[in-house]
Amino acid sequence: MPVNYRTPAAADLLPVAGVRLGVAAAAIRKQDRNDLTVLALDPGCRVAGVFTANRFCAAPVHVCRRHLQLGSDVHALVINTGIANAGTGEQGWQAAAESCAALGLLLGIADRQVLPFSTGVILEPLPVDRLIAGLPDCVADLRADNWHAAAHAIMTTDTVAKAASRRLEIDGRSVTITGISKGAGMIRPNMATMLGFIATDAGVAAPLLQQLLREAADESFNCISVDGDTSTNDSLILIATGQAGIECSDAGSPAYAQLREAVTAVAMELAQAIIRDGEGASKFITVAVEGGRDRQECKRVGYAVAHSPLVKTAFFASDPNLGRILAAIGYADVDALDVNRLRVWLAGGGREILVAENGGRAASYSESDGARIMRADEITVRVELERGPARAAVYTCDLSYDYVKINADYRS
Amino acid sequence: MPVNYRTPAAADLLPVAGVRLGVAAAAIRKQDRNDLTVLALDPGCRVAGVFTANRFCAAPVHVCRRHLQLGSDVHALVINTGIANAGTGEQGWQAAAESCAALGLLLGIADRQVLPFSTGVILEPLPVDRLIAGLPDCVADLRADNWHAAAHAIMTTDTVAKAASRRLEIDGRSVTITGISKGAGMIRPNMATMLGFIATDAGVAAPLLQQLLREAADESFNCISVDGDTSTNDSLILIATGQAGIECSDAGSPAYAQLREAVTAVAMELAQAIIRDGEGASKFITVAVEGGRDRQECKRVGYAVAHSPLVKTAFFASDPNLGRILAAIGYADVDALDVNRLRVWLAGGGREILVAENGGRAASYSESDGARIMRADEITVRVELERGPARAAVYTCDLSYDYVKINADYRS
Repeated sequence: MPVNYRTPAAADLLPVAGVRLGVAAAAIRKQDRNDLTVLALDPGCRVAGVFTANRFCAAPVHVCRRHLQLGSDVHALVINTGIANAGTGEQGWQAAAESCAALGLLLGIADRQVLPFSTGVILEPLPVDRLIAGLPDCVADLRADNWHAAAHAIMTTDTVAKAASRRLEIDGRSVTITGISKGAGMIRPNMATMLGFIATDAGVAAPLLQQLLREAADESFNCISVDGDTSTNDSLILIATGQAGIECSDAGSPAYAQLREAVTAVAMELAQAIIRDGEGASKFITVAVEGGRDRQECKRVGYAVAHSPLVKTAFFASDPNLGRILAAIGYADVDALDVNRLRVWLAGGGREILVAENGGRAASYSESDGARIMRADEITVRVELERGPARAAVYTCDLSYDYVKINADYRS
Repeated sequence: MPVNYRTPAAADLLPVAGVRLGVAAAAIRKQDRNDLTVLALDPGCRVAGVFTANRFCAAPVHVCRRHLQLGSDVHALVINTGIANAGTGEQGWQAAAESCAALGLLLGIADRQVLPFSTGVILEPLPVDRLIAGLPDCVADLRADNWHAAAHAIMTTDTVAKAASRRLEIDGRSVTITGISKGAGMIRPNMATMLGFIATDAGVAAPLLQQLLREAADESFNCISVDGDTSTNDSLILIATGQAGIECSDAGSPAYAQLREAVTAVAMELAQAIIRDGEGASKFITVAVEGGRDRQECKRVGYAVAHSPLVKTAFFASDPNLGRILAAIGYADVDALDVNRLRVWLAGGGREILVAENGGRAASYSESDGARIMRADEITVRVELERGPARAAVYTCDLSYDYVKINADYRS
């Protein structure tokens, strides 16, 4: 059960003019589920992507990068779940390329105008024949109001589909942003989450679109962690169809600022949904770090706390064993950190209490207050470093029996 | 139940001339268990220490560092379990200092000749009055053949006491090395494990003793991880009493080489015992990385694999979901790693099989072979990077339900 998250209803996922989606059951790894998705883009769309920093990155990630480098006149995306097509060598590249060629043939576009994405088990070959055999069904299913079905078709160990939608007015025009994401484990994106696809009908010049995506990813998908494992397949795509009749080409314009805020909000909702549905998660944890010299050191502190199995099991147990948080801050590799200056608060259920100051437990802290907050299902750890103006927030979940169960059982 | 580890019998832990140990039940945190230990050293002993890199390091670590900087004429160690005296601010320093003063008074030595050590819960005050009240019983108990009792008295979540002993001949003299350690969680030492104390009756000049300890720690305690959490209290102490009648002062001498090898073997046995008794551990995993440009990058790869919750749950489940190992290698931050050149083997139960090469699964690999090896309780992942002459091994355990249970329940 995800923590305070529910998939939006199909009717609440607004179509984005210029984008149609189709799904099909191709038996990639399991029978009787939709596991193949195609996005078809009208001519004139611009596409930006950010990808995993994992050096063992999947074949489709290589192919995406190459196709985007050739220019961004992308006309279609093909996404399979079940098999990641990672750690598959030459054969994997071949399979990703064949998928693009087959979809290109069906849609009458070039191979390089197709971007492929895979998610699922690593080190096993992609059954590319079954994938190709499923493409005609996807194409027959293409509809603008199909985001809900696509959000379901890209799931792996996710327990709920993840989607978000916004409509706003920019320069008197109605602009829509809709996105979907998937991921629940092997989540510590370093570029993007496992898979995320966001589209807007605003028009955005290609270099600015890439900048917009990086900025939005940096505040959302690049601030989450379930287990600290950076996936081989992380990909986040932003599509701008331009059909709303507005064009952003100036990073300093109010229109761009509005669009950026709305795209970031959608990205944040999708990223946080992944944590709320994190494998075995029973709590949603925010680690908000303030007063750092730069954003990077704030993130290092946030991730040290967010990755600590000891901190995560204490959250699971609702045990205010808060010294574990101090220990994690202490090994976060912050140069010349003065532990006597930093302060740590804990918030949840509408209350915030000071936990630590002057290198030790705060005089005002009481175990019963700590215990009450630890029972909340949304908890914020706030850390004030008192050494600069920077801040960052990192989002994570607790570590439960179910995390072990899910990952000990996955594949079987 | 630890993985293939049994505490040596009391009779197998050889006394080290010049070191006496005493234990007592001081009710530091729990009743009716020995939780306080004193080591009394004869005049002329030399003492070296390496300590945690955690910036939130415990008060006793600060006091140890200061006392060692004043010179190494240490005459006593005092160790309590139950409360870590970390995250305790001014009050914590005071408590550590008072412990030293009280023991100094009892033994007729200066405060600065005592080193204090604590392990247990962070952020709670050390009950220094109870500790001091327990010291006379420790002193009354001082005996040279008391290593076994001391190994038990320093335990926290350990399920077995950890100790090792060696006797060897150097330059015609019989030399003894005996050590104890404790730790089962919050283990990713970066200097030393939670607590380890090793003594030899060989004589070693002070700077050389520190070098010897660093070298031994680098190959043992600094190569293990249970959960990636670097503790606030990690301390490893090496005592050289000099009473065996041999003196090492030359790092190039055969005598030093012999002593170094034996001390490292004891340190390795103690460090590996911590992993074999890792919280919830059901398997002992060695990640052996070869062909790196330097030892540091080999260790980064080793630790990435050893820290991955996905890899560790797969070991727990005996599931050859080996793509997770490749993914961990891929995010290990090795500059310009060529994933097409590296090879990965899996060994256990007397067999070794090639898992991955050429960026993908090896043609000779079969799932049933992988599954058979994953069922062994001692497994080695061997990674050949093919980019240089360096190597390193990292030791870890699997991640089980019991890890979550132990850490969700600890304190309660």
